[in-house]
Parts: sequence; C-alpha cells; structure tokens
Amino acid sequence: MILDQLTIVGVGLIGGSVGLAAKARGVARTVVGVGRDDRTLARAAAGGAIDTYTTDIREGVAAADLVVVCTPVDRVAADVIASCHAAPPRCVVTDAGSTKGNILAAVTAKLPVGGAVFVGSHPLAGSEKKGAAHARADLFDGRLVVVTPVPDTDPEAAAVVDLFWRSLGAQVRRMGVAEHDLALAVTSHLPHAAAAALAATTPVEYLALTAGGFRDCTRVAAGDPDLWAAIFAANRPAVLGALDTFLASLADFRAALSAGDTRAVAAWLLAAKQVRDALGS
Amino acid sequence: MILDQLTIVGVGLIGGSVGLAAKARGVARTVVGVGRDDRTLARAAAGGAIDTYTTDIREGVAAADLVVVCTPVDRVAADVIASCHAAPPRCVVTDAGSTKGNILAAVTAKLPVGGAVFVGSHPLAGSEKKGAAHARADLFDGRLVVVTPVPDTDPEAAAVVDLFWRSLGAQVRRMGVAEHDLALAVTSHLPHAAAAALAATTPVEYLALTAGGFRDCTRVAAGDPDLWAAIFAANRPAVLGALDTFLASLADFRAALSAGDTRAVAAWLLAAKQVRDALGS
Repeated sequence: MILDQLTIVGVGLIGGSVGLAAKARGVARTVVGVGRDDRTLARAAAGGAIDTYTTDIREGVAAADLVVVCTPVDRVAADVIASCHAAPPRCVVTDAGSTKGNILAAVTAKLPVGGAVFVGSHPLAGSEKKGAAHARADLFDGRLVVVTPVPDTDPEAAAVVDLFWRSLGAQVRRMGVAEHDLALAVTSHLPHAAAAALAATTPVEYLALTAGGFRDCTRVAAGDPDLWAAIFAANRPAVLGALDTFLASLADFRAALSAGDTRAVAAWLLAAKQVRDALGS
Repeated sequence: MILDQLTIVGVGLIGGSVGLAAKARGVARTVVGVGRDDRTLARAAAGGAIDTYTTDIREGVAAADLVVVCTPVDRVAADVIASCHAAPPRCVVTDAGSTKGNILAAVTAKLPVGGAVFVGSHPLAGSEKKGAAHARADLFDGRLVVVTPVPDTDPEAAAVVDLFWRSLGAQVRRMGVAEHDLALAVTSHLPHAAAAALAATTPVEYLALTAGGFRDCTRVAAGDPDLWAAIFAANRPAVLGALDTFLASLADFRAALSAGDTRAVAAWLLAAKQVRDALGS
C-alpha cells in the first residue's frame, strides 16, 4: 500500500509510532500530523514521525487518503466526526482507541452521507510511556490490530484499513464492537485496574522489598491516569463485569486460604497457571 | 569469603543458582547438593551447580561450613532441623524461604544447643520457572537478601550469612521475621494472587487479544502451584490482611467507576502511578 497522504490526528506514542512505521515501510509519500500543541508537533516532526503538521484538523485532513485518529478515547469520536466532514469523499478514517462501542455510538448519525468513511480499529500495542518521544517504528510488528466494521460499512473502506495495518507489520482480526469491548475489558482494562490497586496499596517504604514479580505485575500502573480514566469510563459496563468476575475469583482464593485448605488454593493456582501457560512466556 | 564446603539442600532454581554463583565467584572449594531425586541432582552436577551430591541430608551436611536450605517453604523447617543436628558445631545454616515467621516458629526449641546455628534468609530473586535447568550464576547480582536473625542469634553466625550473600553479589538487609512477612505479603504474595486471579478469569479464547500489559500482569501466575500454595499457607494472616487492603482499594475503584465519577477514577489511578513511578521502570 502506498498512500499519497496519511494524516495522523494525535501524535503521541501510538500516533508517532504509526508515523514512524509508515515512513520506515514506505506506506505514505507524505505524513501529516494534527495536534493541539505546535511544540509537540515540531518535536514529532524532528523525530521523523511526521513530515508536516498543523493544529487545524480541517486543514490536516483536507488532502488525506487515510486518516488515523490516535487521540485519547474521550476525544476520538469528535476527531473522527471532524475528520470525516473535512476529508475528501475518497478518504477512509480509522482510529486507534482502546474502546470501540462508545466511539461507534458517538459518531453514528453524525458522519457525512457519501463522504469519507469511518472504520474503527484498535492496535493491541502500547506502553506505559507517553508521547511521541517513546514512539517506535516497530511498535506494530507482529501485533494484533482489531478492526471493527459494522454491517453497513463500505467493504472497500474496511479492506483499506486492514491493508493499512498489515502494511505497518501488524496482523488484523475483524470483530464486532461489543465483542471487542467485552474481551478487552478482561485482557487489558481489568489488568490495568488490578495493577493500579496493587501499586496503590503498597506503602512506599516496602518498594525496596520488591522483586521482578511486583515490577511486572504493576508495570502498567505507571500509565497516564487521565487517559486510562477515560478508557474505563468508555467501557464501564464491560469493565464492571470483568471486575466482578475477578473479585469472585479472589473471594474463592480468600475462602480457601482462610479455611487453611491448601489443596484448594493449589487447585485455584493450577487453573490460573494453565491459562497463563497457554499464553506462553 | 572462601568456604571449604558449601552444602545446598534442594537444588532447584534458587539452590542451583546459589551453587552456580558460589562456583563462579570462588566462594566455596566444594559445593555439595542434597536432594530427593538422584537424576535431578545428577543434572544439576552436570550443569555445574554442584560438585557432588547425595540424597542423605545427614551425609551431605556432615562436613559443611555453611548449609543453605532451598527447599519449598513447607519443607524448610524440617530440613533446617535435620541440618543443624547433623552438621558440625562450627557450621552455619540458613535458608531461602519466602516466609520467615513460620519457619522460625517450627524450628524454635528443636535446634541443638551448642551446635550448628540457624539464621533465616530470603533472597528476593526468583522466576516463574522451576528447576536447576533455569538456574543462573547472576540471579543474586544486585538483588536484595533479607536476613532475619533473632535476639538470641549468635552475631558471628549472622555476620557469616550476611557475608555469604554479599559474596554471591547480593545486597543484604536485616529485618525481623514479622516485619519481613508483613512486607512480603504486600510486595510478593498478594501480587501473585492478583496475577493468578487475572489469569484464572480470562477465557482462553481471549488470549489472542492480549498484549504486553496482560503478559506482564500475569507472568508470575505461571509459577508452581504447590510451591505457592505452601507460601500462602505459611504467611496466611499477613496475606489475608494484604488481600483485604487490596479488595478495599478495588471497591473504591468500583464505586467511582460505577458512579461515573471519572475524576475520582483518575485520582485513584494517579495515586497508584505515584507509587509505581517511585519504583522506576
């Protein structure tokens, strides 16, 4: 895939990595960055993630063949709507948000008829680090991107989005938005909450007594609080459901431990190990 | 420190790493392994972790200057008692168990008077992998070892234990057993339970939809279920206390999310981030 112009709205860790990957793989002749802060955009340009930039989204998408909206999930819908209205009718608009249902609901009935087409995406790649300074050209290599067309999505537009992510080195899987949001509540949003609760309840004077296990278990808790608060809000019912299942499992553990039933604790741990082993190291 | 004979009781990941580190750093002229399975011991010897081995603990410690008991926590006390009775009076016996209070309680009044001296240790190093095949000579490099002498411990014996771990590349910190067990419940045992509950509640068909965050958060859940069930049992009151603090924090998160209070969720995440950031990456 070779695009004449790729526009990235929100040039942070994900957006910057999209730009670096697109440049490194020759996916776009020109990469345009759109953001709110000229200095941030200038640094992203200096780092090679984008060729040019603007703080005016209408200007940034006016000649785009593909727009990728990489802003925080509470801003994605507004940026998708603005992009679809200002981009050429041939343009395809996608995003990189961690939740899909809320974005679909917010954009539905607000997109232009016969204009640029929106197809949601979620690259399962990221970092607890923030900003284009941590962007990497290989962030999507071999990673999964979930693409979420709906029944009335133009199949050609969905195919363009699939091809775009594959061109950045990713694998693509099509899913429905509800299915995506339920699964990601379990595989991403709940682990973040658990990691945060572990960190939050650890007295700082105990940090010297941690080893690799604690470090791994809590790594994602260093993520951006506002970004993650928005993700939780955007996927609230699914996160609450996943949390309740998790709490029920911990209640089983607590009951077995409290009763001194070491065999039941071992059986509970074995069931967990079997799932984790299925994932590989 | 140069020992004539170091005996390692239990030559798995930790015991094997003690042997490799002792050999690599010239800490012992001879390293003797004690275990229950000849074939396992033969493999550890072939891998260079031990020079000779026996399945008879009395024989293995009879000429030891220092004994390190590296068996699972539910077997440490019996192996310490057996070692102290069969070792020469000049010998110092230590262990590598993740819990300290239960071991101290179990050995108290069962050690020989005027014989080998026991001083508890806990190296904060390990892996979700098991067995001497995964042992590493650098496992203790720069890691913390908690040494837990009690008021009537011979100060010279405690100093020998400090020096031994430092000779393997570790840093040493003295702590009381109760203080150790409370801290490790928070920094090691609780994170293990949380990781296991995350893994246990993840449908295997969702594993393809995981990324680095899930992988990190759940890594320790691949650990040995029996070994960890014994650790939880050995530190039950402290683990239950840490678990309840963790559950209370998750209840705060749940209440804020359920109420749609995104600012409260962000504040909760920020408090967690501040602790995690204090640890460093």
